[in-house]
Amino acid sequence: MPPLRFKHLGVAVSEIGRALKTYEEIFGYRLLAGPFDDGIQKVTVCFVGTGLPSDVVLELVAPHPGESPVNRFLSRGGGAYHLCYEADDFDATLDELRQKGCLSVGDPVPAVAFGGRRIAWLYTPTRDLIEVLESRLP
Amino acid sequence: MPPLRFKHLGVAVSEIGRALKTYEEIFGYRLLAGPFDDGIQKVTVCFVGTGLPSDVVLELVAPHPGESPVNRFLSRGGGAYHLCYEADDFDATLDELRQKGCLSVGDPVPAVAFGGRRIAWLYTPTRDLIEVLESRLP
Repeated sequence: MPPLRFKHLGVAVSEIGRALKTYEEIFGYRLLAGPFDDGIQKVTVCFVGTGLPSDVVLELVAPHPGESPVNRFLSRGGGAYHLCYEADDFDATLDELRQKGCLSVGDPVPAVAFGGRRIAWLYTPTRDLIEVLESRLP
Repeated sequence: MPPLRFKHLGVAVSEIGRALKTYEEIFGYRLLAGPFDDGIQKVTVCFVGTGLPSDVVLELVAPHPGESPVNRFLSRGGGAYHLCYEADDFDATLDELRQKGCLSVGDPVPAVAFGGRRIAWLYTPTRDLIEVLESRLP
């Protein structure tokens, strides 16, 4: 399997505007993309960072009103909660991850923030939540 | 303030050996440094990644037997829980972060994994846990 390529770190936040302001002030980050509303994931997300290739990109993830999967992480205190990796051969990578003991959370779905490329959620055997992102549309 | 430079992502794990094996198998990561036992933090840590400059470095953090601050994050499910940033002017950076609304968790202490360079823990106003690392010994 080609190694998964790290893409971004997901951070659960209560509200995008306030979080964005904090990340700009504290870390000198800027908005790289978004905000995007994703009706399937029931979240609003944006990407922040320095924009330098060597620097980490954070995805700020805020819940839609009502039910949202991210509420579970916010109720634990919020902050960093998932790692996103890009994979070229998306379906084969998912199969291989499951063979290695990862547990799928639902089926792959297209993601607004990535122009409809598919994402899938999995828990590793050590219970880390990862998002696998299709590197390009089929 | 010079921007904080992202250093690594801290991941809470139950036990270093098993986590290391998982990260090697799933992500193709290798051990970059450690394991280190830190009696002050009451944790064993190691650093893993691909070793490519553009790639994220993960710090796997496992509790010492008995009391350990990382147990709190493990009881929430484990996984990603802190971001570490390096700062050149350590004390001035901490002052500035506090002025911007960050909350210190204890005093700065030397860290075994960084050759005695000091670290400090803070919560951002949006409740993200960050570790600030002195970029060099005074």
